[in-house]
Amino acid sequence: MRASVLSDWLAQRLDRGNGQPIYRQLHRLLQQAILSRELPAGSKVPSSRLLAQELGIGRNTVTQVYEQLVLEGYVSSATGRGTFVAESAPDEIVGAPEAEAPAAPLESLPPPLQGNRALSTRGARLIAGAGVSKRQWGAFMPGVPDVTKFPARVWSRLHNKYWRRLRPDLLTYAPGGGLALLRHALADYLRTSRSVRCTPEQIIITTGIHQSVDLAVRLLSDPGDLIWTEDPCYWGVRSVLHVSGLQSRPIAVDEEGINPSVDDLAQPPKLMLVTPSHQYPLGMVMSLARRRMLLEYARQNQCWIIEDDYDSEYRYGSRPLASLQGLDTSGQVIYVGSFGKTLFPGLRIGYLVVPEALAESFATASAELYREGQLLQQAMLAEFIAEGHFTSHIRKMRTLYGQRRQTLLDAAARRYGDALPAVGGDAGLHLVMQLPEGSDDRAVAAAALERNIVVRPLSGYYAQPSLAPSGLLIGYACVPDEEIAPAFNTLADAIDATLVQFA
Amino acid sequence: MRASVLSDWLAQRLDRGNGQPIYRQLHRLLQQAILSRELPAGSKVPSSRLLAQELGIGRNTVTQVYEQLVLEGYVSSATGRGTFVAESAPDEIVGAPEAEAPAAPLESLPPPLQGNRALSTRGARLIAGAGVSKRQWGAFMPGVPDVTKFPARVWSRLHNKYWRRLRPDLLTYAPGGGLALLRHALADYLRTSRSVRCTPEQIIITTGIHQSVDLAVRLLSDPGDLIWTEDPCYWGVRSVLHVSGLQSRPIAVDEEGINPSVDDLAQPPKLMLVTPSHQYPLGMVMSLARRRMLLEYARQNQCWIIEDDYDSEYRYGSRPLASLQGLDTSGQVIYVGSFGKTLFPGLRIGYLVVPEALAESFATASAELYREGQLLQQAMLAEFIAEGHFTSHIRKMRTLYGQRRQTLLDAAARRYGDALPAVGGDAGLHLVMQLPEGSDDRAVAAAALERNIVVRPLSGYYAQPSLAPSGLLIGYACVPDEEIAPAFNTLADAIDATLVQFA
Repeated sequence: MRASVLSDWLAQRLDRGNGQPIYRQLHRLLQQAILSRELPAGSKVPSSRLLAQELGIGRNTVTQVYEQLVLEGYVSSATGRGTFVAESAPDEIVGAPEAEAPAAPLESLPPPLQGNRALSTRGARLIAGAGVSKRQWGAFMPGVPDVTKFPARVWSRLHNKYWRRLRPDLLTYAPGGGLALLRHALADYLRTSRSVRCTPEQIIITTGIHQSVDLAVRLLSDPGDLIWTEDPCYWGVRSVLHVSGLQSRPIAVDEEGINPSVDDLAQPPKLMLVTPSHQYPLGMVMSLARRRMLLEYARQNQCWIIEDDYDSEYRYGSRPLASLQGLDTSGQVIYVGSFGKTLFPGLRIGYLVVPEALAESFATASAELYREGQLLQQAMLAEFIAEGHFTSHIRKMRTLYGQRRQTLLDAAARRYGDALPAVGGDAGLHLVMQLPEGSDDRAVAAAALERNIVVRPLSGYYAQPSLAPSGLLIGYACVPDEEIAPAFNTLADAIDATLVQFA
Repeated sequence: MRASVLSDWLAQRLDRGNGQPIYRQLHRLLQQAILSRELPAGSKVPSSRLLAQELGIGRNTVTQVYEQLVLEGYVSSATGRGTFVAESAPDEIVGAPEAEAPAAPLESLPPPLQGNRALSTRGARLIAGAGVSKRQWGAFMPGVPDVTKFPARVWSRLHNKYWRRLRPDLLTYAPGGGLALLRHALADYLRTSRSVRCTPEQIIITTGIHQSVDLAVRLLSDPGDLIWTEDPCYWGVRSVLHVSGLQSRPIAVDEEGINPSVDDLAQPPKLMLVTPSHQYPLGMVMSLARRRMLLEYARQNQCWIIEDDYDSEYRYGSRPLASLQGLDTSGQVIYVGSFGKTLFPGLRIGYLVVPEALAESFATASAELYREGQLLQQAMLAEFIAEGHFTSHIRKMRTLYGQRRQTLLDAAARRYGDALPAVGGDAGLHLVMQLPEGSDDRAVAAAALERNIVVRPLSGYYAQPSLAPSGLLIGYACVPDEEIAPAFNTLADAIDATLVQFA
């Protein structure tokens, strides 16, 4: 379908009598036309004035639908030039393990309430933009620690201790905020290791970063509110924000971290979500000047800052950095962390540190919204920390991951010299290998997956993948030492094959 | 500090000018005084009348703070004798690593963006309407099974088996939908025991009813969409719906279950949430005619039905009833269940059964939104089911709870004859005792709590508590047999005292 016949096509399908608002119908139809490629990438859509006229509907309705589609990444608009179908629609999932099924042509739409078309607008958008990988283990899965080194015997001993004599209070629902014992142990740890200033009451136990962000967003923002996210950022959090109705504004990062422009600063957000200790996924550390600027801006404009401190325990060559929360004197930082990277992801224990004045509301809301439990596991973890196993495990893993990182860097240097530099490897569980400008990192990742190697294309972490730098996230933490060099060579074969092919 | 100088100490610290409500300040100060042992355990605190006078504040404020502290376990009150500092304050956890850091003095409280005023509209509404109870165990907490009867030795054996040889795939993030092994075991169980028609792929493992409903609502509805809820219904689900932006329309129930009026039927909702097997909290069973009507209405109007089958394993005197899902021929029912009532609430494993066409979207969205884990626990549970422990535990508990229910009914009959009839006790873990029309069930519940008995006022489950029938939810499942009659008599004292007082 050419864009010029779009209004006829739409006119045939809009149905004033079916009870669905025209706004909603138009939005869905345009999404369908774009996803099915009936409206090809790059094609220009009619101006809102023209389309409104031809369909006999309000221009405001069309404008709003276009704005929504821009936000969702289906179209982009260039001032003075018009609105164009995006080069890659948001359903083209980055790093999807298998070739995506082509969208069904419009004629073959299934009967009602079937398939993805029965999803809500937010549901369809979530599925279309889903970044989750089907693989969660093996070379070079980013963000996954080596769970085989977890001290299983200590953990089993604690388990048996707590199950030997059942304590009903540990097997029922959790009080708001989680087990006091764990909150105490965490407060101690965060004070000494992460320079976080808090009392145990300010700590809210969650199931991880996703739930922590969900809780903060629901308590502190309303649908339509603006949130700053770093560009690039973690796909999972982006999805959580979107289903909560937030409008996220991607803010560029430079070597000092998030770097809002004058335009950005002119529109203060309700919330901002930053990774000061180790920008995700690029790995730079936010400078002190930038930290002070952010805190002062947030104070003046009454924004909340969510500090995601997801893996800063692992710093190679320098001491772990102090948290942004520790610099905050006006109670505007929500600090978010988890045990997923330090112990094992499947544990599903994370935490928020909230300003004192919010502590009670967060505790109540966590019980009300999630009806938490898992107190026995929280008791085991508290004891695990109190007995010193937590810090000694981190120390041990830091050494191990540091070695693996070096092994990976050596393998890369042997194969490529300085041609494909790695960045962001000073901390955490992955590094980013830069690919030549203009190369297709998604194709490289797909070729690697064919060779049973998981890497994630860097461009997928950006708000506009088509304009993003090309690179690969390579996770080394969960790869046994002796497999790193061979696996890298397999990856390099995929890189070479793809870059030649696509050159 | 002796209790007699408490009012001076408080007077010096209460600060009307600092923007913090007096209620909150007084609450914190008393907590601090108790935690720091300034007010020793066992000491008597001034009466609310006296303290209010000496501080020059409202007596209601003091009463409310005292009630809050009773709820939290800081003080206890004995009718006619006064209010006393508890022997062990709630922070004194066995094995707590160190004494708690004293809360920051009130003077140093930071400026703006503080307190509930900083919550978003949806956040403030959530907190204001929160129904979650601070107590989760003891007579007569509704909805809590007897976790002390859980076969701990079997569970520990399974735990040790899985931790003896670490399987990395069980310790990392979960694939969308949960562990295949558990989904298979559940499909078998649900087919045979609950007449649910499904393949393992249609089962999505979640952390419980809250997450199941959250997922369904986000994938299938948009903010502003209409959802039918039963009136009365479970408070927790109501909160989940509200933060997701749904408009809920409370639909009256009669003895056949949900009973939409002509007006209701004229506005088809996007979703409806029903408890056909055991209306929550009233306990009636939805009739077959009503089930057929609902399914046909949903088919014609393209609505989704969420069937919450939360505790129907426990039916006394008749066989468990077939699910609504099993009658659905057009794929419109989302079936929701959990192991919280059958095993123990703290386990946090629940599930959805979704129509085939939605299975993949739900699996993807669960991984994307919640980043699930806990696979090792899921493997243990799958084996627990496969080895027959699950069904035999249910059988054993059904007999036990049936006896406890009878003991409770006998105690009620001895005290009240037919004056306060009980309803809804044919199934589940609680029954509803009706109170005389116009009586204040919240006052009764508060009076019971002063006597250390937890019951929940029926009116709070209705959309309009002030117009609702008066009654008490009495949970008998987690109360040892020999404690039921004495605890009921204590409850009855509270009922009698309150109903006389308010007559």
